[in-house]
Amino acid sequence: MKITIIYDTKTGNTKRMAQAVAEGAEGFEGIEVIMKHIDDASPEDLLSEGLVIGSPTYCGLMTWKLKKLFDESVKTAWGKVDGHIGAAFSSSGGLGGGNEISLCSILTSLMNYGFIVFGLTEYAGRGVTAHYGAVAVGDPGELEVKACRRLGEKTAEYVSRMFGGNRKEE
Amino acid sequence: MKITIIYDTKTGNTKRMAQAVAEGAEGFEGIEVIMKHIDDASPEDLLSEGLVIGSPTYCGLMTWKLKKLFDESVKTAWGKVDGHIGAAFSSSGGLGGGNEISLCSILTSLMNYGFIVFGLTEYAGRGVTAHYGAVAVGDPGELEVKACRRLGEKTAEYVSRMFGGNRKEE
Amino acid sequence: MKITIIYDTKTGNTKRMAQAVAEGAEGFEGIEVIMKHIDDASPEDLLSEGLVIGSPTYCGLMTWKLKKLFDESVKTAWGKVDGHIGAAFSSSGGLGGGNEISLCSILTSLMNYGFIVFGLTEYAGRGVTAHYGAVAVGDPGELEVKACRRLGEKTAEYVSRMFGGNRKEE
Amino acid sequence: MKITIIYDTKTGNTKRMAQAVAEGAEGFEGIEVIMKHIDDASPEDLLSEGLVIGSPTYCGLMTWKLKKLFDESVKTAWGKVDGHIGAAFSSSGGLGGGNEISLCSILTSLMNYGFIVFGLTEYAGRGVTAHYGAVAVGDPGELEVKACRRLGEKTAEYVSRMFGGNRKEE
Repeated sequence: MKITIIYDTKTGNTKRMAQAVAEGAEGFEGIEVIMKHIDDASPEDLLSEGLVIGSPTYCGLMTWKLKKLFDESVKTAWGKVDGHIGAAFSSSGGLGGGNEISLCSILTSLMNYGFIVFGLTEYAGRGVTAHYGAVAVGDPGELEVKACRRLGEKTAEYVSRMFGGNRKEE
Repeated sequence: MKITIIYDTKTGNTKRMAQAVAEGAEGFEGIEVIMKHIDDASPEDLLSEGLVIGSPTYCGLMTWKLKKLFDESVKTAWGKVDGHIGAAFSSSGGLGGGNEISLCSILTSLMNYGFIVFGLTEYAGRGVTAHYGAVAVGDPGELEVKACRRLGEKTAEYVSRMFGGNRKEE
Repeated sequence: MKITIIYDTKTGNTKRMAQAVAEGAEGFEGIEVIMKHIDDASPEDLLSEGLVIGSPTYCGLMTWKLKKLFDESVKTAWGKVDGHIGAAFSSSGGLGGGNEISLCSILTSLMNYGFIVFGLTEYAGRGVTAHYGAVAVGDPGELEVKACRRLGEKTAEYVSRMFGGNRKEE
Repeated sequence: MKITIIYDTKTGNTKRMAQAVAEGAEGFEGIEVIMKHIDDASPEDLLSEGLVIGSPTYCGLMTWKLKKLFDESVKTAWGKVDGHIGAAFSSSGGLGGGNEISLCSILTSLMNYGFIVFGLTEYAGRGVTAHYGAVAVGDPGELEVKACRRLGEKTAEYVSRMFGGNRKEE
């Protein structure tokens, strides 16, 4: 089983979030974790049992490069990933700047492909959660990083349950 | 395991969709299917392993009665249904009248509670699909009903996979 | 001309935001500003030239009481407010907790009624903006309050331009 | 005053919608109407007093080419179009296939830039409206074309009211 984390980044903030998601997803038996910058991603990456997409918030949506990957992977992966697990994360320049709405854009394309998508109910700490995926305003702080880690971990848990793998090695 | 279908209805169109979803979900070993009008629903219903919510399209969102159920079930069910399976359906008076956007409102509240949510990639037939849940314009036609049935069936499949039940008896 | 601010509130945070929106909207010649708790609002209030709706973030959407007002005002106001100006604000318990998505739910119902809707491009200060309406996490801070004020002011500017009033008295 | 209609198209359906929007917008005194395929569009086009964006529904969002235009026009147009009028249209392969959600993606980026956005309350005829912009499933029929025309007309009306032009010459 594979979890692929694909991210775009402008200032490095979204990349830091991607790393935290990857850390959270690692350590589950039978699950390989791959992290790719959008420039290195290919349509085959969308076939992973777990797919977490991260984008800086650009005009309230994922970046055009990430959208291009979805648009151009239809032949390879669309409709072939029913029941695979999807999630999202996004970093914006400001509170109220669109990071949650950007998550929605990612979840929309993931659902379109057949992924089942989720967020976290729990709080990473006071005032920070990830109900529709993980977000950060500017440089992700400790709690935002924790939310990203938990998002990765939860992705791995769900992949394990849907695809027969085992639970995290304690 | 339980799949609960909760619907509101004004003209009866959404009720017909609910019945089709229920038909699709039935017949899986170990899964009980329950269909409830919103007036009969209670917070405990949100604890089901599968939850499919249907609403007439009202101002582009689920009806206030359905929203009231979500708002008032927080103590009973919020955060207790991580990984449960959620889906949506909606009937509008017109194409472009908000049925898809109403689906999004339902999926938002489901995700908020911890549900993982999905749509169908497949087409029920020419020109009708359910990428974010099932929709109908006015009286649901044969293809719209088929999409609802398939949504129910897929809910049952995912519930089975996540909660250890078996596949549909053929 | 009239600008009505209707809000629901649980902890008082959204009420504080409503007050700031009202402050921002005041002082424009020919525009009366009215602020109403949802329990005091009536369908006629939706006929105002400017309408700003504020909600605590509940399950990622406006509260059921606010939705009830939209659902039950159709006969009185739906389709009679084409070109009126609408905007939104929301307060959530956590970053990533759904405040932006709640804004979207409000904007959806406003558009459904015929309102033209907007957000702010400008930043209230470092790290705080209101691109789709004003948001706050918990108790609104100085910058969040400033964003609310600016949202109210901008509502008044647009109402003036669309309905022939004059600009703010300097 | 200028109204620019920018569209992407795959099968020609969205192009036909663009033409209808353009027809609707024409004939208003002092308003020039320009229609451009995305390949011919430039950042300066986003400065128009009215901007209507049309996209085939691709993975539930506007196409990457349209998104690229938004992403790369920030320096030229972002924050310089406060109060300009924006609207959207989209063509999908199926009912429930994401055309409304694609409209939302366009409205999101338009709002982000500063546009005030709107939909139509009225119905083009039985079962067809454009509450969040105009949509079509496959080849746009007579009513869908009528909705597009009306969207263009309404854009021109709002541009006239916001920017001082006169009403349509009868």
